[in-house]
Amino acid sequence: MITLLIIIIIYMKIDIVTLFPKIFNEFLNKGLLSKAIEKQIISINLVNVRVFAKDNRVDDRPFGGGVGMVIKPEPLYEAIKSTGVKRKNASYKYCYNKPYVIYMTPQGSLLNNNIILDLTKFKHLVIVCGHYEGIDERVLNYIDKEISIGDYVLSGGEIPAMALVDATVRMLPGVLNPKSIINDSFFCNLLDFPNYTRPAVFRGYTVPKVLLSGNHKEIQKWRDKQAYIKTKTRRPDLLLQK
Amino acid sequence: MITLLIIIIIYMKIDIVTLFPKIFNEFLNKGLLSKAIEKQIISINLVNVRVFAKDNRVDDRPFGGGVGMVIKPEPLYEAIKSTGVKRKNASYKYCYNKPYVIYMTPQGSLLNNNIILDLTKFKHLVIVCGHYEGIDERVLNYIDKEISIGDYVLSGGEIPAMALVDATVRMLPGVLNPKSIINDSFFCNLLDFPNYTRPAVFRGYTVPKVLLSGNHKEIQKWRDKQAYIKTKTRRPDLLLQK
Repeated sequence: MITLLIIIIIYMKIDIVTLFPKIFNEFLNKGLLSKAIEKQIISINLVNVRVFAKDNRVDDRPFGGGVGMVIKPEPLYEAIKSTGVKRKNASYKYCYNKPYVIYMTPQGSLLNNNIILDLTKFKHLVIVCGHYEGIDERVLNYIDKEISIGDYVLSGGEIPAMALVDATVRMLPGVLNPKSIINDSFFCNLLDFPNYTRPAVFRGYTVPKVLLSGNHKEIQKWRDKQAYIKTKTRRPDLLLQK
Repeated sequence: MITLLIIIIIYMKIDIVTLFPKIFNEFLNKGLLSKAIEKQIISINLVNVRVFAKDNRVDDRPFGGGVGMVIKPEPLYEAIKSTGVKRKNASYKYCYNKPYVIYMTPQGSLLNNNIILDLTKFKHLVIVCGHYEGIDERVLNYIDKEISIGDYVLSGGEIPAMALVDATVRMLPGVLNPKSIINDSFFCNLLDFPNYTRPAVFRGYTVPKVLLSGNHKEIQKWRDKQAYIKTKTRRPDLLLQK
């Protein structure tokens, strides 16, 4: 008798540390994320900071005065620690097989394709969402990387965390057709080429003839040219990036 | 007898055109957004593109071949039209009291504080979310502005739409304490200063003494300096922006 032992290895574990776990429900139950979870490529765990608040308080007024509330350091630290992050002090060095703690903040590094490709190498991401005026600055001693999704301010880190998770998971092996990723905007520093589907005539607007030609070489040439023209016109800065 | 006639005027109407309306449920029911809806500062309406698909198909394969699916032009056009957008042709000019149609795409203008401040002037925003490989290019004839939330690719426009709505609504009068917005990152091209709250000592880390001094002039001076140092160190490019 032959016994087959199948060991399923989760490719990436993701913990999301948040005050508002419910906001992620539908995001995790639909589309790409739910498929990646089903396929056991990722596992996602929501960590509710409120559970770690001893006196039921997660925020307090800022030292020095001013408007808004600041997230207290202890419950946040305990919530991060609960995900398996072990470190004695701030001089801890991270590597790909240890948990990597990310804080979503407008003050972080601007998210781009290179950061995302780097994140895909980690086995365990811990994503911390702020809210209100932000978190107590001393918690940054337990954060490996601060990431911003763009130069604007949102009411919390939950939407940025969704963006980060979605952008990272779609790059993991087995999630999407690799050809789909290669055609993405920002791959090779180019924006995507224009897409058309049926009908061939829509409210008087036609589809470029080459796309109906069946000549795959000419179609690729046209798409490459359109992607270049679009990038040159809209985002010439991308063409200058290394 | 005196009759008081109270007319409630919604400051901004927002339509979100999407294939996945459910993903917005918790986002609209929590925090800042739900408060702005309660206060009748905004009204948000989710438009399900599937309702406008005559043959129950919202996507189809791309002309010219390739991986992925493209959103069909007709149901998307009909969904946009259903929000009250009236225009005869692509040369239509927009103004602040007409519906402003935005398409969330990595190929659009990079979202920043200036774009957000401009959006707050409109009475009616229609936000179109793409999905899969994107939308049929011909629908762009009915879009006023393409906006990107950053240089990365997501599986759909729903998370970017949430980011855009959150960032815009928090700037509307009556939603937040104006003092809170003035201290935001990117206001005056600076990142936010560090925030601290109780306890004064957390795992050996103390709060900067000046914040405990009660001297408001010194506190403001320290905060301004810290915001400048943080920006200079992390994002010197912001200091060069006009």
